Amino acid sequence: MQTQNPKQMAEDDDCQPITRRIQRLSLHLTPIARPLYDDQHQLQMLICARTKLNVNIACLSDYMRGNHRDIQEKVFEYFNSRPDLQTPVEISKDEYRELCWRQLLGLVREAGIRPFRYISEDPAKYFAILEAVGSVDMSLGIKMGVQYSLWGGTILNLGTKKHRDKFYDGIDNLEYPGCFAMTELHHGSNVQGIQTVATFDPITDEFIIDTPNDGAIKWWIGNAAVHGKFATVFAKLMLPTYDTKGISDMGVHAFIVPIRDMKTHQTLPGIEIHDCGHKVGLNGVDNGALKFRSVRIPRDNLLNRFGDVSRDGKYTSSLPSINKRFAATLGELVGGRVGLAYSSVSVLKVAATIAIRYSLLRQQFGPPKQPEVSILDYQSQQHKLMPMLASTYAFHFATLYLVEKYSEMKKSHDEQLVADVHSLSAGLKAYVTSYTAKSLSICRESCGGHGYAAVNRFGSLRNDHDIFQTFEGDNTVLLQQVAADLLKQYKEKFQGGTLTVTWNYLRESMNTYLSQPNPVTARWEGEDHLRDPKFQLDAFRYRTSRLLQSVAVRLRKHSKTQGSFGAWNRCLNHLLTLAESHIESVILAKFIEAVQSCPDVSSRAALKLACDLYALDRIWNDIGTYRNVDYVAPNKAKAIHKLAEYLSFQVKNIARELVDAFELPDHVTRAPIAMQSEAYSQYTQSVGF
Amino acid sequence: MQTQNPKQMAEDDDCQPITRRIQRLSLHLTPIARPLYDDQHQLQMLICARTKLNVNIACLSDYMRGNHRDIQEKVFEYFNSRPDLQTPVEISKDEYRELCWRQLLGLVREAGIRPFRYISEDPAKYFAILEAVGSVDMSLGIKMGVQYSLWGGTILNLGTKKHRDKFYDGIDNLEYPGCFAMTELHHGSNVQGIQTVATFDPITDEFIIDTPNDGAIKWWIGNAAVHGKFATVFAKLMLPTYDTKGISDMGVHAFIVPIRDMKTHQTLPGIEIHDCGHKVGLNGVDNGALKFRSVRIPRDNLLNRFGDVSRDGKYTSSLPSINKRFAATLGELVGGRVGLAYSSVSVLKVAATIAIRYSLLRQQFGPPKQPEVSILDYQSQQHKLMPMLASTYAFHFATLYLVEKYSEMKKSHDEQLVADVHSLSAGLKAYVTSYTAKSLSICRESCGGHGYAAVNRFGSLRNDHDIFQTFEGDNTVLLQQVAADLLKQYKEKFQGGTLTVTWNYLRESMNTYLSQPNPVTARWEGEDHLRDPKFQLDAFRYRTSRLLQSVAVRLRKHSKTQGSFGAWNRCLNHLLTLAESHIESVILAKFIEAVQSCPDVSSRAALKLACDLYALDRIWNDIGTYRNVDYVAPNKAKAIHKLAEYLSFQVKNIARELVDAFELPDHVTRAPIAMQSEAYSQYTQSVGF
Repeated sequence: MQTQNPKQMAEDDDCQPITRRIQRLSLHLTPIARPLYDDQHQLQMLICARTKLNVNIACLSDYMRGNHRDIQEKVFEYFNSRPDLQTPVEISKDEYRELCWRQLLGLVREAGIRPFRYISEDPAKYFAILEAVGSVDMSLGIKMGVQYSLWGGTILNLGTKKHRDKFYDGIDNLEYPGCFAMTELHHGSNVQGIQTVATFDPITDEFIIDTPNDGAIKWWIGNAAVHGKFATVFAKLMLPTYDTKGISDMGVHAFIVPIRDMKTHQTLPGIEIHDCGHKVGLNGVDNGALKFRSVRIPRDNLLNRFGDVSRDGKYTSSLPSINKRFAATLGELVGGRVGLAYSSVSVLKVAATIAIRYSLLRQQFGPPKQPEVSILDYQSQQHKLMPMLASTYAFHFATLYLVEKYSEMKKSHDEQLVADVHSLSAGLKAYVTSYTAKSLSICRESCGGHGYAAVNRFGSLRNDHDIFQTFEGDNTVLLQQVAADLLKQYKEKFQGGTLTVTWNYLRESMNTYLSQPNPVTARWEGEDHLRDPKFQLDAFRYRTSRLLQSVAVRLRKHSKTQGSFGAWNRCLNHLLTLAESHIESVILAKFIEAVQSCPDVSSRAALKLACDLYALDRIWNDIGTYRNVDYVAPNKAKAIHKLAEYLSFQVKNIARELVDAFELPDHVTRAPIAMQSEAYSQYTQSVGF
Repeated sequence: MQTQNPKQMAEDDDCQPITRRIQRLSLHLTPIARPLYDDQHQLQMLICARTKLNVNIACLSDYMRGNHRDIQEKVFEYFNSRPDLQTPVEISKDEYRELCWRQLLGLVREAGIRPFRYISEDPAKYFAILEAVGSVDMSLGIKMGVQYSLWGGTILNLGTKKHRDKFYDGIDNLEYPGCFAMTELHHGSNVQGIQTVATFDPITDEFIIDTPNDGAIKWWIGNAAVHGKFATVFAKLMLPTYDTKGISDMGVHAFIVPIRDMKTHQTLPGIEIHDCGHKVGLNGVDNGALKFRSVRIPRDNLLNRFGDVSRDGKYTSSLPSINKRFAATLGELVGGRVGLAYSSVSVLKVAATIAIRYSLLRQQFGPPKQPEVSILDYQSQQHKLMPMLASTYAFHFATLYLVEKYSEMKKSHDEQLVADVHSLSAGLKAYVTSYTAKSLSICRESCGGHGYAAVNRFGSLRNDHDIFQTFEGDNTVLLQQVAADLLKQYKEKFQGGTLTVTWNYLRESMNTYLSQPNPVTARWEGEDHLRDPKFQLDAFRYRTSRLLQSVAVRLRKHSKTQGSFGAWNRCLNHLLTLAESHIESVILAKFIEAVQSCPDVSSRAALKLACDLYALDRIWNDIGTYRNVDYVAPNKAKAIHKLAEYLSFQVKNIARELVDAFELPDHVTRAPIAMQSEAYSQYTQSVGF
C-alpha cells in the first residue's frame, strides 16, 4: 500500500471522460454555491492534493477544544497525582463501589471541583467535567451523574425553593448521597405504566409510599445498594376523594424519600433494599432494588414545581392535564441525554485513538522480501477505522452544538427551543451511543489478540458504555420520539406552521423531493461534485424527506384499518430509518458548518477530508435507497464507492494527526499498545518482563 | 401488532396485479425445478398459510439434533450434579483458573469423558463434547481445546509414533497439561514471520531454543501461565551448514519443550514465563508469555512428521519446499477452526434463546386502554431478532455439514477434500463468529436494562466469545484465504480444471453471469417466485460470480503497476465481500437442502419460513449491488423488502417453538429472565427478594 500511487487511484478502473465533460459543462450552466473564504483556492488545492496533507495539530486541537479544557485538565491532574484512586484491572464489585465513592469524594472535597454548581448555571462546564471524570473511570462518571444530574436534578428541576434550601448543600458536598428511583422491574421505557403509589393521608399530612406488587419494585436504582441516603421516588399520586370512588389517580409525581438513617446508615423501616448485583459493566455503581411497605413521608417531600397538594388534600397545578404534567416532569430530565451523547463521543475518541495508534504501530505481512507494512496500510483496516474516525469528528461538532443549544434553552426557556433540544438530544443520544457501541467492538477486533488484553481497555470501555444505549431512554424508543416529532413538523408544514431550527431544512428539501430526481445530476460523478457540500446535504435531506413523506402516507393508510398503535407498529422499521436519516442530516450540516468556520487552512482541509468521508460513506451505506429512486445512476454509485475508499486512504495519511488533535494524554488513554512512545516495551513491562 | 391482520399485510401497499399475471405466465414458459416430495402440495399450503404454523417441536428437535446428544447430556448432567464446579458471577482471575482446571479434571477423571480419544477417531463426537463443555463455561471449552486440540493435536498430527507413544496417555488423562506456543508478541497472523529459533547442536544432539528479541516472546499461550508442563513451540529450524553461511534456516517447525518440572512444577531453567493478565473474557484460561534463553531439548523432540533431522544434522522431508512443509503443518490445524465455527453457533443459540424468551415475556406499551404488548410484537424487535434466529438455523446446518466433511477428510485424506475443508472452515469460522459477535451485542441491547444484569449472561457470552473472531486465524485474514481459493478455482475453470465440491456451482452461475440479467425476471415480485429456492440461490450465486469475475479483472489490471501485493491490497474490500458472498451462498445451499430433506411436514414448513427469511434478508441487505446491475428492478426490490418484513412477522409467530427446538434446558441457558416458567420471580429471587 505504501508504494501505491494515489494519482493512479484517482484515475481508477474505468474513466469516463465524456460523462465528465458533460458534467463540467452542466456545472457551468448551473453554478453551485461556493464557500465564502478568500483562501478558497488554497483550500481547493489542499483538499484535492494527491500528497499527504500537512496538518498543524496545534491549530486543529485549538479549534476542536471546548471552552472548559482547564477544568478537564484539573480533573486529569488530580487523578494522575492520586494513583491510589486509580481503578485496577481486577477489583471485586464491593471494593469497586467503595473506590468509586472515594474517587467522587476526592474530586469534590479534595480537588475542589463542584459539578453541582454548574448544572443550571453553566451546563457546558458540567458536561466538560462529566467527560473528564468519565475518562478516568466511566463508573465514576455515572456515579457523579446519578448524584448531581439525576438525584440533584430532581431537586433543582422538579422541586421548589423549600427543597433547594434544604438539600442543595448536602447534595453539593456529598453529605446527602441520593438516588433517582423511577424504573421498576416491569416498567422502564413506559414510565406512565409504573405502579408504585404515593397515597395522601390527610389525617397525618403525609404521603404513604407503597410497592403494590413485585413488578413495581424499583430496579436498577443507582446509589441505592450502598451509599444512598435519599431517593427521589416516582410514584402515582393518589388523592382521597369524597365521592364513591374514594381515591383518585393524579398521575406520576416525584417524592423525596429518606431511605437510610443519616447517622447509622441503617435502611429505614418499611424499606427493603437489595443489591441488583453484577452488571455487564459499570460495577463501580451500586445499583439497587427498592421495595416500599407503607413508608410515610411528610407532604413537603412532594417535588411540587408542576403540581401540589394542599393541607386539605386539594390538588393544584399550573398545567391542565396529567399528560401535560408528565411531559413537563420528563422534559426536565433531558440534560441526562445531552450528557450521555456528549460522553459517548469521548468514549469513541479514546477507543479510536487506541485502535488507530496501535494500527499504525503494528506491522504484519508485506510485499515479498520487503519489510512488513503497518496494518493501517491495509484497505480493510482503513475501511474499519477511517469512517469511524471521520464520524468521531462529526459527532464532536454535533454534540458541541447540542450542549450549546441546551445551555441556551436552560437560560431562555424558549418553547420552540425546548422542543428542538428534546428531539435533538433524543436523536443524538440514540444515534451516537449506538454507533459508539458498535465501534468499540470493531476497535477490539481490529486490534486482534492484543486488543483482547484487558489493559488495552476495549473490554471495559465496551462493557461500561454498553448501557448508554438503554438508560436515559432506550434508543429504539428515543428514535421513535424523533420520528414522531418529524411527523408533527411535517403536518405543521402543510398547515402553514413554522418549523423549529433543526428541522428547517425540511421545507426546502420537501419541495425538491416532490419533484422527480434530476436525471442529469443523477449521473454526475466528478470529485468536485461529490465533494460539494451541497450535493452531500441535498442527498441526505432528500432521503429524509422521502422517508418522511412516504411514512406519512403509509401511516395514514394503515391507521384506517389498524388504529394508530397498529399503524405505527406496522411502519416501525420505516420510522426508525427516518429518524436515523434525519439525525445524520443534522450531523452532516453541523460538520459542514464546522469545516467552513475553521480559520486555519490546513485544519480546514483536514476537517474537509473527514467530512467528505463521513458524507460519502453514509451515502454508500444506503446506496440501495438512492439507486431505487434513481437519485443516483449506476455510474455515480460506483464513483461514490470509489471516492469513499480513496478518502479512507487519504484520511489514513493524516490519521495520526487527527487523533493527536483529540488531546488525550497517555495517562488518559492508558492502553500500553497505544502509548505514544515505546508502546511494545510498555506492554511487555505491563505483564512483568 | 397482535391485532394485525396478516392477510392485509400480504396485500400491502401497492399490489401490481398485471406484473403478477405476467410473471405467472412466464413461470409457465420457464418451469422451475420443484422439490421432490409427495407432500409438496401440503407444504406449499403450510408455508403460504396466513395463520400461525403448528410446529411439532419434538419432530423438529429430533431432526436438528446431532448424533451425539447422549454425550452432551452426560456433560450437562455431570456439571448439574456438581454445583461446586459452577462458575460464579464474581470470581478473581486466579481462582477462576483453578476452578476451570478442576472443571476439566472433573470432566475427564470423574465423569469419565475422554475428549482426546475422539479427536482423530470421531471428530464429530469431539466437537459435540466441546459444544456442551463450552455451554457450561466457555473458558472450560477453550481450556479443553488448548489441551486436546492444540497441544494434543500437534502430537497427533505433526508428530510420529514415538511422540504418540510417549505423550498420548499423559495428554489424555491430564497428567501432561501442555501449550501450543505459536503466536509471538510481534507475529500472530503472519506465522512465517515468527522469530523464535531452534538451532541444532550436532555435538550434543540437541536443539537450542532461543527468543532472539522481545518481539519474539511467545504471547497469549494458553495453559502457560499456570498449568502447563510442556509446550509445542513453533520456531525456525536452524541447521549448521559446512559452507561459508554457517547456518541455514529450514523454516518453521514444531518442537516439544518441557517448561515446568514434572514434580515441583517449577519453571525450568532458561525459561521465563509471565502471566498475560486479565483479558476481555475467558479469564478461566491461563494465557502466558514465554521467553527462552538457550533451552536445550533432545533431537527427538522435533515433531518430525513433515521434516526430520538426522543424528549428523541432515534434513529430510517428503515435501519438497519450505512453503509446502509450512502449508502441511498449518493444514493439520484446521480442526480448531471447525470447532470454533461449530461452538460459535451454539453460543448464538444460547443468546438468541435468552433474548427471544425474554422478548416474549416482556411487555411494554400497547394500544390505548388495552393491555401492554410483548416487545417481540414490535416490528423493530422482530427486525433485530428474527433474521438472527433464521441465521442460527442456517449456521446450524452449515456447520454440521462442515463437521461431516471434516470427519470424512480425516478418514480419506482426499486432496480435493482437504482443500475444500480448509477453505470452508476458514470461511465459516470467519463468517459465523463475526455474525455471532455482532448478535450478542444486539441481544443485550434488545433486552434493555435486564439484559445488562450479569446473571442474564450477555456480558460474559460476548466477552468470552469475542476472541473467536481473532484466534485460530483472524477473520479478515481467513476471508482472504477464501477469496484466494475462489480465484484459484476461477483460474482453473478457465484452464479446464475441476472444481471442488463446494465451489461447483460457480461453473454454472459464471455462465449465467456472463450473460446480462434477464429484464423480465428482474421484475418478478410474486411471493412464489421470491420464495423459490432457485431464485434465492441464483441471486446469491450471481452476486458471488459477479464479484469474482470483476475482482479477477481488477487484480490483473492493478498487478501490472503495483505488483501482486499492492494489487491485492487495492482490491481488499472487494475480496472480503467476495468471500462473504461465497460463504453466504454455501450456507444458503445447505439450508435449502436441510429444508428439503426434512421428513416431517410441519418441521419442514417451519424451516422453510426461516430459510426464506435468511435468504431474503441477506438479499435485501445488499440490495444496492443487485439494483446497480439491474438484477432486480425497483418493484422487485420493494417486494423483497416487504416480504422479508412479513417473514420476520411469520417467524415471530413460531419463535418460541424454534428456540425450544434447540433443546437448551434452563440449567444451560441459566439467565433468570429466560426461564421457561416464573422468569420474573426467579429474577427477583436472584437478587435476594
